Amino acid sequence: MAENRPVFSRGNLTLDVPMRMFEENRTRLCEALRTAEGYQPGSVVVLQGGESEMRHSSDHEPLFRQESFFHWVFGITEPDCYGAVDVDTGRSMIFMPRLPESYSVYMGALNPPEYFKKKYGVDDAYYFDEIGDVLKKDKGPLLLLHGLNTDSGNYAKEAAFDGISEYKTDNKILHPAICECRVLKSDLEIEMLRYTNKISSEAHKELMRQIKPGMYEYQCESIFQHYCYYNGGMRHVSYTCIGASGSNCSILHYGHAGAPNDKPIRDGDMCLFDMGGEYYCYASDITCSFPANGKFTHEQKLIYNAVLKSSRAVLAACKPGVNYADMHRLADRIHLTELVNIGILKGDVDEMMKVRLGAVFMPHGLGHMMGIDTHDVGGYPEGVSRIMEPGLKNLRTARDLKARMCLTVEPGIYFIDTVLEAALKDPAQSEFFVESELAKYRGFGGVRIEDDVMITEDGVELLTDVPRTVDDIEAWMAGSASAQ
Amino acid sequence: MAENRPVFSRGNLTLDVPMRMFEENRTRLCEALRTAEGYQPGSVVVLQGGESEMRHSSDHEPLFRQESFFHWVFGITEPDCYGAVDVDTGRSMIFMPRLPESYSVYMGALNPPEYFKKKYGVDDAYYFDEIGDVLKKDKGPLLLLHGLNTDSGNYAKEAAFDGISEYKTDNKILHPAICECRVLKSDLEIEMLRYTNKISSEAHKELMRQIKPGMYEYQCESIFQHYCYYNGGMRHVSYTCIGASGSNCSILHYGHAGAPNDKPIRDGDMCLFDMGGEYYCYASDITCSFPANGKFTHEQKLIYNAVLKSSRAVLAACKPGVNYADMHRLADRIHLTELVNIGILKGDVDEMMKVRLGAVFMPHGLGHMMGIDTHDVGGYPEGVSRIMEPGLKNLRTARDLKARMCLTVEPGIYFIDTVLEAALKDPAQSEFFVESELAKYRGFGGVRIEDDVMITEDGVELLTDVPRTVDDIEAWMAGSASAQ
Repeated sequence: MAENRPVFSRGNLTLDVPMRMFEENRTRLCEALRTAEGYQPGSVVVLQGGESEMRHSSDHEPLFRQESFFHWVFGITEPDCYGAVDVDTGRSMIFMPRLPESYSVYMGALNPPEYFKKKYGVDDAYYFDEIGDVLKKDKGPLLLLHGLNTDSGNYAKEAAFDGISEYKTDNKILHPAICECRVLKSDLEIEMLRYTNKISSEAHKELMRQIKPGMYEYQCESIFQHYCYYNGGMRHVSYTCIGASGSNCSILHYGHAGAPNDKPIRDGDMCLFDMGGEYYCYASDITCSFPANGKFTHEQKLIYNAVLKSSRAVLAACKPGVNYADMHRLADRIHLTELVNIGILKGDVDEMMKVRLGAVFMPHGLGHMMGIDTHDVGGYPEGVSRIMEPGLKNLRTARDLKARMCLTVEPGIYFIDTVLEAALKDPAQSEFFVESELAKYRGFGGVRIEDDVMITEDGVELLTDVPRTVDDIEAWMAGSASAQ
Repeated sequence: MAENRPVFSRGNLTLDVPMRMFEENRTRLCEALRTAEGYQPGSVVVLQGGESEMRHSSDHEPLFRQESFFHWVFGITEPDCYGAVDVDTGRSMIFMPRLPESYSVYMGALNPPEYFKKKYGVDDAYYFDEIGDVLKKDKGPLLLLHGLNTDSGNYAKEAAFDGISEYKTDNKILHPAICECRVLKSDLEIEMLRYTNKISSEAHKELMRQIKPGMYEYQCESIFQHYCYYNGGMRHVSYTCIGASGSNCSILHYGHAGAPNDKPIRDGDMCLFDMGGEYYCYASDITCSFPANGKFTHEQKLIYNAVLKSSRAVLAACKPGVNYADMHRLADRIHLTELVNIGILKGDVDEMMKVRLGAVFMPHGLGHMMGIDTHDVGGYPEGVSRIMEPGLKNLRTARDLKARMCLTVEPGIYFIDTVLEAALKDPAQSEFFVESELAKYRGFGGVRIEDDVMITEDGVELLTDVPRTVDDIEAWMAGSASAQ
């Protein structure tokens, strides 16, 4: 990298990120837009960054985290900014809030736009109140962000400012183009995800070394977060930590405010820790499942190995052209086959597949896009439909894989009472159960093995690096440095 | 406490909180309302709790933290609830969202209202969609929360639900009554603040032991947060950690996303760590200032002792009947006197007071109410006016102290370039400076000493417990266990 090129840095302990990453993102976006149907020359992308907030009526300000599209285009860490890109020329502009004099006392130096121009490596920087003068009304339309997030059901917020009604605008072409750019990661973005995975993998390993029965689940969450921040500069986690033990492992999104990782971890419990650190708004999303006391029981080993088998089979099968819904079905098929081998199920696996029995044990999707958001955008672009069958309907993408996609692969087998009860009452499904065997696993919880991967030209690059086999996990937890 | 009385518990490592605390809060509120001007018999308080949120258009759900008024009345940790209190009888009701079947798979057991009635020790619990049937339209008005937060300038959000327009409502009497109740802490609330201060004090001490030059500021933040969560069950901090070193110590709210504690800590730096853990929505707010290398220089000692002197003088002077603006002025006067002794200022301190020279060195207020919010409500009730003079105008309360108020006492001396430049250009202020001496302290940063106190019948109870004298700090940082 040339000298004096701007870089995001948190110091010499963590990853430096060249602003060139965002320059490349903008270049990719402009290329995509120029060839998009309906593109009009002279168009200018206008995005509004995240706004600073206060909690309810109080003056408590939650720690700001940038809006994800805006971050992808500009990499700006401050709130209340706007940005624009001239699509024909690629020229980038940012618009910073004009802050009051008191900012210098409470918040730090009152930097002029020129400072941010250098900091973020953009072509021009202005105060936000200049936006109406800078953006010309007689050029092509302003391209605004409007589109559905297929995970949340929410719509992106179009940039708005006083006087925008005087401009021609287009809110159709930007969203699909930028989503598709976000789906296919650049080399520098992949470096980011390698880093988030490296640090988060180490944090999981540290936690596996420190855990012991008698600790509380939340203490493990604290260990994980501390490792990521202290060693990796990760101030945020990508999502609320799931720190489950025992039967809590069957609650897929355990850990929220209503179930806040507050159970004591008991000898004999399986644990399921689904936690990922976030660095400069890039996510990681890793799940490790292991016995709290470091030694698998016979039953724990059976279920764990069934999931490991599907995990490794999917990792081996993923490559460009493969459909991700087929990967979900592959995992289901392996789970069902293994559950027959274990003795919990009986009968023909093909018949089980027809009644979607796999979804009883894995009610969630096999994985999802990841990047700036943990559940990254672009899972269902126009032309790709959600498959409305149990399990598959929860899959966050049913796309054919392409090189440079980054996804999670996270098969799991869970024993969820309400789901099992429903299956046992369903004549089409109940015939496959060996209830006496199943009874042994009620309250077991569940196992999930979640890795992050990048699709390469001919397979995957596994970004996550944690002990995965039963032997490796037991050796690592016993303190063997050579286990990994 | 009687058996089977409901308790908030995070396990046996942390503080158990009886739901009786909220019952007492409700009782106090009803008593206040029944004697309030304009109270109408049959009135029912109706509050809406905080709502679950997603970040921008994504499905990222920030970790939920309850709205503060709602927490004070009901102590409910879950989002999307409502609550009501019949003021004449004190009867309490909560209204829980009717969650979809899928909740049991993703979030945990689908508990009926009866479960929450027991969990929170209220008289009745219903589903929210029953609220229109439960609250009678022919009784007194619904009392809704509407009023200004004098720290944020924002207004509390009135509860709203379909059909509320068919009720008589009153949005005048609830806000002042509940704010005043929140100002005067109950015994159980004081127990909470003792606990948050105990854990946060220990975390500061741990950090003082671990810090060394070469570390990054954010690593200290991570140590603090980990200690509070791992040892104290504090999943949230009360506010974004201020982890300042060197000249950053003069940025009063350093640590936000635009100035994220990312400087390496250098040998010779003063540090200013303003950090507090939050437990079950109750805050702490503590600042420790000390040299990064554990040994004060001559200049550091001079400035530190000047602030310590004002801190201890204010703690000694606070008691019921004392006006808090007078305490601010007392701190100013001591700072100015000490700055004359140090040689940075010259002239008559009374004259300096007339031109508010103290605000040049302490531009913020001396302290603020604290409780569920770090900047707790009730600083400026009707009849108490903000004093629009430098420094004093930033004071978050100018009230006369009363027993059971909990406040911070946080004097500081800072060398803020922009503020000093302005003072040196102001003929009324510049005459007091010895510029050659002042020059030695440019870039010094600043010192803040912040303690949390409860006003007793005849003085204060100091809730914070950290090393405060130069000798104690140096001994503690050198590893002497007897220093505290």
